[in-house]
Amino acid sequence: MSKPKIVIAGAGYGGLITTVKLQKLIGADEASITLVNKHDYHYQTTWLHENAAGTRHHDQTRIAIKDVIDAKKVNFVQDTVTKIKPDEKKLVMENGELSYDYLVVGLGFEPANFGIEGLLDHAYIIRSINSSRLIREHIEHNFAVYNNEKEKKEERLNIVIGGGGFTGIEFAGELAERVPKLCKEYDIDRDKVRVIVVEAGASVMMGFDPQLVEYALNSLESRGIEFQTNAFLKEVTADSIVYEKAGERHTVKTNTTVWAAGVKGNSILEESGFDVNRGKVMVTEDLRDPNHDDIFIVGDCAAIMNEETGKPFPPTAQIATQMGFNCAQNLKALIRKESNTQKFVPEIKGTLASLGGGDAMGVVMGKKLFGKPANVMKKASDNRYLYQLGGVGLVLKKGKFNIFG
Amino acid sequence: MSKPKIVIAGAGYGGLITTVKLQKLIGADEASITLVNKHDYHYQTTWLHENAAGTRHHDQTRIAIKDVIDAKKVNFVQDTVTKIKPDEKKLVMENGELSYDYLVVGLGFEPANFGIEGLLDHAYIIRSINSSRLIREHIEHNFAVYNNEKEKKEERLNIVIGGGGFTGIEFAGELAERVPKLCKEYDIDRDKVRVIVVEAGASVMMGFDPQLVEYALNSLESRGIEFQTNAFLKEVTADSIVYEKAGERHTVKTNTTVWAAGVKGNSILEESGFDVNRGKVMVTEDLRDPNHDDIFIVGDCAAIMNEETGKPFPPTAQIATQMGFNCAQNLKALIRKESNTQKFVPEIKGTLASLGGGDAMGVVMGKKLFGKPANVMKKASDNRYLYQLGGVGLVLKKGKFNIFG
Repeated sequence: MSKPKIVIAGAGYGGLITTVKLQKLIGADEASITLVNKHDYHYQTTWLHENAAGTRHHDQTRIAIKDVIDAKKVNFVQDTVTKIKPDEKKLVMENGELSYDYLVVGLGFEPANFGIEGLLDHAYIIRSINSSRLIREHIEHNFAVYNNEKEKKEERLNIVIGGGGFTGIEFAGELAERVPKLCKEYDIDRDKVRVIVVEAGASVMMGFDPQLVEYALNSLESRGIEFQTNAFLKEVTADSIVYEKAGERHTVKTNTTVWAAGVKGNSILEESGFDVNRGKVMVTEDLRDPNHDDIFIVGDCAAIMNEETGKPFPPTAQIATQMGFNCAQNLKALIRKESNTQKFVPEIKGTLASLGGGDAMGVVMGKKLFGKPANVMKKASDNRYLYQLGGVGLVLKKGKFNIFG
Repeated sequence: MSKPKIVIAGAGYGGLITTVKLQKLIGADEASITLVNKHDYHYQTTWLHENAAGTRHHDQTRIAIKDVIDAKKVNFVQDTVTKIKPDEKKLVMENGELSYDYLVVGLGFEPANFGIEGLLDHAYIIRSINSSRLIREHIEHNFAVYNNEKEKKEERLNIVIGGGGFTGIEFAGELAERVPKLCKEYDIDRDKVRVIVVEAGASVMMGFDPQLVEYALNSLESRGIEFQTNAFLKEVTADSIVYEKAGERHTVKTNTTVWAAGVKGNSILEESGFDVNRGKVMVTEDLRDPNHDDIFIVGDCAAIMNEETGKPFPPTAQIATQMGFNCAQNLKALIRKESNTQKFVPEIKGTLASLGGGDAMGVVMGKKLFGKPANVMKKASDNRYLYQLGGVGLVLKKGKFNIFG
């Protein structure tokens, strides 16, 4: 009897944790494991806003896949997934295809247009290493051009962040640190630069404790970040945005709109005939596609309900990582046929948002944290993920140690 | 009797050396000296190609004017000169005007189009701190975009240097060092990047000893620089150039054309009614405008004949600096009415071209130098200028000491 073939599509939080846990749980003779990923590196999506702002180099955010997989147990294929053929049990890539007995889909998110005209054409998205270092360079390029033009263009110095949720706020915090440095580099007055967060809700960071939100606003406003709430983004062009507030339309000139307000699951699932809502599959208790017993879905492509709130859990690295652990265990159970699969139960340990410059806030184990303690906990949590992925060595190599900042 | 008013327009090599020497030669009660410059800093034009390539930070290339002028003797006005009114003895600036008894014009060069279509609109020029850091950022921005586009565009990675003279070759040498670093930063194969020098002459570095030229070509070609000689640039667009060679037209896709093949004097002179050729005034023996005894012209706006060759001396930092010394002496002579002005006699000590990565070549005191000795001499010469301008302190602050590179 040949070994069962496990194919893992995508080396994000969900897919890569599935891979590294599975390689520990089973022997090389028990299954053939193949990981497919577009790049030869994994990256920490939750750190990308720092790369996009230019406050942390992207090499600190990415991890070579060969450094965390066990080549004796896992084959790595660098290719881009284009389609899943569940009936043929095949994964199609740009340069080949793989047949599987079990497939793990961890293909991540992609931007959704949300009916905003021009959004997908003109807004930048903090999505990948490529897109994040492009945002960094795009901002810097505009600053570099500014003083070379006779007619000074404010759109080169205005930065609009679409969405005051978690990513938008964290990105704003890093920009608050980066902008003064860019001003120095390109001989531009700080007062000429505007960073504006446009948020449709009545407040930024909806769902957070009001005291925490106020703390974040104070921290960011004191460093020059502007906020427009109850403001609905209507249109994005190459050099402006339009938002509607209290029935009036406002235009802001900007060459840099960064969309941080919502995403959908990878469209490959829909294109492959999966039953999706916003690109996400409402998975079974053990993270499988309801229509295909042999397909697990982890991370941002998987929707799971929060029974307490009656709404799906937001897509987070924390949950994607936990899904990876669960998925690896369940794959072991299926291969060994020793036990049933286990229900996935997310455990929300806390939520911490960094605000840039060593500031942070959030909730850990039900306790509100502000400033340095929050920052220390945030970095500890980042380092914990690295430990789970690659042990002490990876923490030392890629960890965040500037906790006194 | 009121003190004579000396106004120095432009703080380039010629104007700034005139200022710092004059403040040493005369007492505060002998003349009122005013230096006018667009920026509050001086920069070393001969280092700008390094800033443009990104191998040296522009802060190393610029020097705060307040650090080298004696505020007790020299007034500094930060403004942009727009016109000279010789009949009224006035210098007009964007935000005011100054009357003078003696004017020193050191307004530098500007690009000339040389009949090449689109050159002034689309080519980048290594001209100032602003333009050089823009070139650095423009190249980097194109590298950053490259991997974010589905259809890969070679024009983002092709860099064309128009002109294989001194600046073109020095810039190519720095790019040869910078490109591999950019490739690493943006995950691009070095083989995909082309740097092409397009030269109208039969050889690059015309006028240099053939052995030196061959040395330079070997050094640069071994690091991936391409050369097209007998190639006449005909047209520059935003994403291409056309050159003609042996009767055929060739197109190279590129978003980055850097023009390094020739300049003219500042057009303010022509617009102010001076008698110019390519924007330059053929000055008198003591560097004055033939039509105005009270106006000295130094640096790239002044043409002086090389009697040995029958052609004007090329505009160089070396000559501009020597003009500054001469001009300061002559101003002192005129103010004190003690002696006649002295004829300006350029003294060409040598010419050294850096080739990037610690390589260099050139002639010093009639002796050919290659590689490390040339590099050491080149840096010594750069440091000597700093010493002349601001003493040991300035050498320590802004000097080039990586002579073992």
